Amino acid sequence: MRFVLVHGACHDGSHFEVTAASLRAKGHEVHCPTIQGNREGDDRRTTRLEDAIASLVAYFDEHAIEDAVLVGHSWGGMVISGAFDRLGAARIRRLVYYGAFVPIDGESLLDLCPPHYRDLFRQLAEPANEIVFPFPIFREAFINDGSLEQAEALHASLNPQPFLTMADPIRLSRDPAAFDCGKSYLHCTEETGLPQSYPFHPRLSERLGLFRLVSMPGSHSTFHTAPELLAQKLVEAGRD
Amino acid sequence: MRFVLVHGACHDGSHFEVTAASLRAKGHEVHCPTIQGNREGDDRRTTRLEDAIASLVAYFDEHAIEDAVLVGHSWGGMVISGAFDRLGAARIRRLVYYGAFVPIDGESLLDLCPPHYRDLFRQLAEPANEIVFPFPIFREAFINDGSLEQAEALHASLNPQPFLTMADPIRLSRDPAAFDCGKSYLHCTEETGLPQSYPFHPRLSERLGLFRLVSMPGSHSTFHTAPELLAQKLVEAGRD
Amino acid sequence: MRFVLVHGACHDGSHFEVTAASLRAKGHEVHCPTIQGNREGDDRRTTRLEDAIASLVAYFDEHAIEDAVLVGHSWGGMVISGAFDRLGAARIRRLVYYGAFVPIDGESLLDLCPPHYRDLFRQLAEPANEIVFPFPIFREAFINDGSLEQAEALHASLNPQPFLTMADPIRLSRDPAAFDCGKSYLHCTEETGLPQSYPFHPRLSERLGLFRLVSMPGSHSTFHTAPELLAQKLVEAGRD
Repeated sequence: MRFVLVHGACHDGSHFEVTAASLRAKGHEVHCPTIQGNREGDDRRTTRLEDAIASLVAYFDEHAIEDAVLVGHSWGGMVISGAFDRLGAARIRRLVYYGAFVPIDGESLLDLCPPHYRDLFRQLAEPANEIVFPFPIFREAFINDGSLEQAEALHASLNPQPFLTMADPIRLSRDPAAFDCGKSYLHCTEETGLPQSYPFHPRLSERLGLFRLVSMPGSHSTFHTAPELLAQKLVEAGRD
Repeated sequence: MRFVLVHGACHDGSHFEVTAASLRAKGHEVHCPTIQGNREGDDRRTTRLEDAIASLVAYFDEHAIEDAVLVGHSWGGMVISGAFDRLGAARIRRLVYYGAFVPIDGESLLDLCPPHYRDLFRQLAEPANEIVFPFPIFREAFINDGSLEQAEALHASLNPQPFLTMADPIRLSRDPAAFDCGKSYLHCTEETGLPQSYPFHPRLSERLGLFRLVSMPGSHSTFHTAPELLAQKLVEAGRD
Repeated sequence: MRFVLVHGACHDGSHFEVTAASLRAKGHEVHCPTIQGNREGDDRRTTRLEDAIASLVAYFDEHAIEDAVLVGHSWGGMVISGAFDRLGAARIRRLVYYGAFVPIDGESLLDLCPPHYRDLFRQLAEPANEIVFPFPIFREAFINDGSLEQAEALHASLNPQPFLTMADPIRLSRDPAAFDCGKSYLHCTEETGLPQSYPFHPRLSERLGLFRLVSMPGSHSTFHTAPELLAQKLVEAGRD
């Protein structure tokens, strides 16, 4: 398979490298692009969601990628949804939402969060119009399955997320349920990046219409705490 | 233990043979009857739910079965509920609902599905008054844990389900919660035969009143994708 | 780490001894106090929730315990909540709710149960103002993952629970979300001590505000059915 792995907010392509190595060892081709707004030197104050999506579309064009399994993690669900809407099923044969947001036209990532998260994100974005999660929240809510050392190392590697990429509504020509490609949702069972009473799955996953559910143990950060198992589950999510 | 394993819609007794072999190897007696309406030569247009139930009651009588652990998978939950109501606790010491429907008097399987499923099933039943699930739906919703090869092999082995056995209301003299036998629910955690927002468990399982929950990883078709683990979990569900 | 493990209703400190031994073998200090009301010779008719909490506070004082990871199982969640409110974060660095009730000021354990449980508990408490769970309920709802032998042995070891410790409202000076210590919830995935449609987690766990979710397979009684795995999960819940 040809995988394109799209990272979440505050992350970059390097965060998928252990998972990618495991997939390559199984014989797959893997791309780990870093999305516009998370690259060194990017202007965090002004990068918009549309810029992020356009950068993934450009990556597909530059590398002439076709027949891809396009995976989006967390915020990356916004990006892969927008990219599929522009690139179509000839370029992307299956979308895999991995603990990811599934938007419909006109929604932002913030719209898909519980109200107290929206308030928190707006506060965190002051004054630089960018977000980094404070360590105590990150450690408990995003990497609850990891050791303190794993949590500290991952947190230290994060980069600030342009707030507009979380606050901008997405523009989509159709609902994700109408995307004419395969669709999978990879759910980690100790996921608490969103509260389990206001969850990613099944609240957002079922917007995909007919989709393949794959699950695995772990938190929002299994690319860091369980990268080999993640690779195996991405194969299960992406095959045929 | 003496197990009687009742298959789901479109299946027959042969689908439980690997699980049955595993149970027999552990020293248990296992019956895998094929229910009326799923046998070669049965008239799919006219077989009713009551015929299906009556055929299981007849199987118990023909084989003089007593003290059974009666397991129903999926649609089989309708059949074992009706059969227990007629046969009683002397013949059946425990009911095990395995990813199965739990009806109350006057409900059909269709009544227990979300509205858009009912519409789909009615369309699929045209014009022959029988149902086979199209492969794309079957592969994603019913065997999401399997390989393409497993999905194709299982789908090729299905037989059309008489629509009336899904549309007929069941007649029960009491609620399942009042059944005076042991009751277990075996839940597969990646079950998406019904949407996880409108699920088998706990929405239907809790109709059993006091019941034993047993769970295992996997889809709606673990008899095909994980038959040995299924056998182990049936023992846990059925013991004492 | 320094663990203090607080048992549930009808149990005593000895029920945690296998888990404690496993934790000690990993180098941890472990206390397994028996709470007032569950000790031999205690007057079950008159022991109140406040007595139970006071006995845990007294245990901390007698043993000069500081920097503890305080774990409460089931009803023990009432006791550790009250004790933290009195002892503070200098003595207790993290609370771990293990299949446990999370009350707010003015609530009793009964208030946190579904209505039909409240009725059942009131009936069971007659005439001696104490509760023991009947074996059929205990076996199916509290140790569904165990063998009959395990269920019988555990049930035989129970002692009657003073009803007032379940019916008394707790007095807390602040909400658990405002407790200024670390907080974890350890969830067993086949937990049916409360119905899964009216569950411990996430219904009660999310009252903790920011908390660390850890989960493991098993029933309400994994201290009996999976004590080594429980020890490992308590380490994951309690570390940092």
